[in-house]
Amino acid sequence: MTTANTMHPFDEAIQLTPQGDHYRGQTSAKYANMVGPFGGITAATLLRAVMDHPECQGEPLALTVNFAAPVADGAFDLIPKLIRTNRSTQHWSIELVQHGQIAATATALFATRRETWSATEAQFPDVSDVGEGMEIPPTGLAWVNRYHIRTLRGHLGLTPASQETSSDTVTQQWIRDEPPRVMDFCSLTAIADAFFPRIYIKRKQAVPAGTVSLTVYFHADAATLTAHGTQCVLGYARANRFYNNYFDQIAELWTPDGALLATTTQVVYYKQ
Amino acid sequence: MTTANTMHPFDEAIQLTPQGDHYRGQTSAKYANMVGPFGGITAATLLRAVMDHPECQGEPLALTVNFAAPVADGAFDLIPKLIRTNRSTQHWSIELVQHGQIAATATALFATRRETWSATEAQFPDVSDVGEGMEIPPTGLAWVNRYHIRTLRGHLGLTPASQETSSDTVTQQWIRDEPPRVMDFCSLTAIADAFFPRIYIKRKQAVPAGTVSLTVYFHADAATLTAHGTQCVLGYARANRFYNNYFDQIAELWTPDGALLATTTQVVYYKQ
Repeated sequence: MTTANTMHPFDEAIQLTPQGDHYRGQTSAKYANMVGPFGGITAATLLRAVMDHPECQGEPLALTVNFAAPVADGAFDLIPKLIRTNRSTQHWSIELVQHGQIAATATALFATRRETWSATEAQFPDVSDVGEGMEIPPTGLAWVNRYHIRTLRGHLGLTPASQETSSDTVTQQWIRDEPPRVMDFCSLTAIADAFFPRIYIKRKQAVPAGTVSLTVYFHADAATLTAHGTQCVLGYARANRFYNNYFDQIAELWTPDGALLATTTQVVYYKQ
Repeated sequence: MTTANTMHPFDEAIQLTPQGDHYRGQTSAKYANMVGPFGGITAATLLRAVMDHPECQGEPLALTVNFAAPVADGAFDLIPKLIRTNRSTQHWSIELVQHGQIAATATALFATRRETWSATEAQFPDVSDVGEGMEIPPTGLAWVNRYHIRTLRGHLGLTPASQETSSDTVTQQWIRDEPPRVMDFCSLTAIADAFFPRIYIKRKQAVPAGTVSLTVYFHADAATLTAHGTQCVLGYARANRFYNNYFDQIAELWTPDGALLATTTQVVYYKQ
């Protein structure tokens, strides 16, 4: 058994204790965000609750997490519900409950894949002219220190009350867990949420913003993630539209040798 | 009151009858697909169940529908659950139950928007060189006749057991309800699913395929949709990856004058 002091902070943060028909989790100060935990760690924990479940079949295919309220520091309960098991797919709903209220909901789709004709249509982003990338400037956010990030395009460059906007909303970044950890579905889920809000990039300001819904599609199996190991993935994110309090983000996560591991979208609240 | 014989087939198909704490719906032969109803009409009906609910606040912002099993012809029950009401957002879960089993689940996020700084980042697709578009060849599918579609790129051109593949998976199409109907959130949701499976386009064959999860982000308000009226929207869809039984589709829906009404993603099962 791995003891707590040798456990990777990510594994510590998503650790769950069975409580009869549900699971008990605990927020981790190491993944704290501005208000409550980093959304990616909450999403990973929700996925973990299904993967830990004795009736779980197959591997993650699609996950949608809705952030209904901030998660407070401390314990929370995850209540997975098996909706339906088909021949090759399984559908789950999960609720995150804290102090008697639902703080997040999720739906997760698991699948047992068989080998078929396959093809990657998306193009690996052109990173030939961007060098090694830049470190994220200090943010004071604990979760950011849990990632090794090198930004190639769309740097986090905040200026006080800037009036100018960037020419686009694209960020390209190399990212892996810090300290390094072998990739799995939970860590990939968290990495899918590890981009700064697109509005920070576009407006060069940190306006109030928070993800309200996140969807991840997994395009790889567990063996591919294990083989990827502790290498960085290339994240490529951009926004389609900012409109009256909400914008979307769409992103891809690639291995350095061009395997598309996941695509992800989210809708984000912003204030000004 | 509108009587059944003057009602638009779309309104007829998504009509719900309150049954105490839930709603009763009925599949419509006019929106039949190969097996069960067109997924877009099921998604629209799930959204409708929330919009009809007396406690519903705000307008649709994000919808995820998971298709757990085929919906059989006939009646079904929609059970909306209000998860949480915040100052400007509301979270819902919905189950579609038929013959005592859950055939679909959904989560829906509603929001009351206020005017903020806004910007559209995605580019309106270049349709300057493609002419008026082509009609969809006869498919024998009822739901296809409920849409006026003109394909600009990525035509549905199926060949028996073709060995060649297309150069890409892009489809661009002008689409509106047939007969014309003023746009609203429900019809926009259905239109988000009204692309043929990307694998038909890529492989030029109709291999067995079906959507298992669909997400729609709404980037417009009700007034914009009403003002759009009965015009066509420009749909732009493509796939990122086909991998061992599942591929994704990502799409945009635009007004002719360049307003991005919605972005949508789905993950689709395929067999060969």
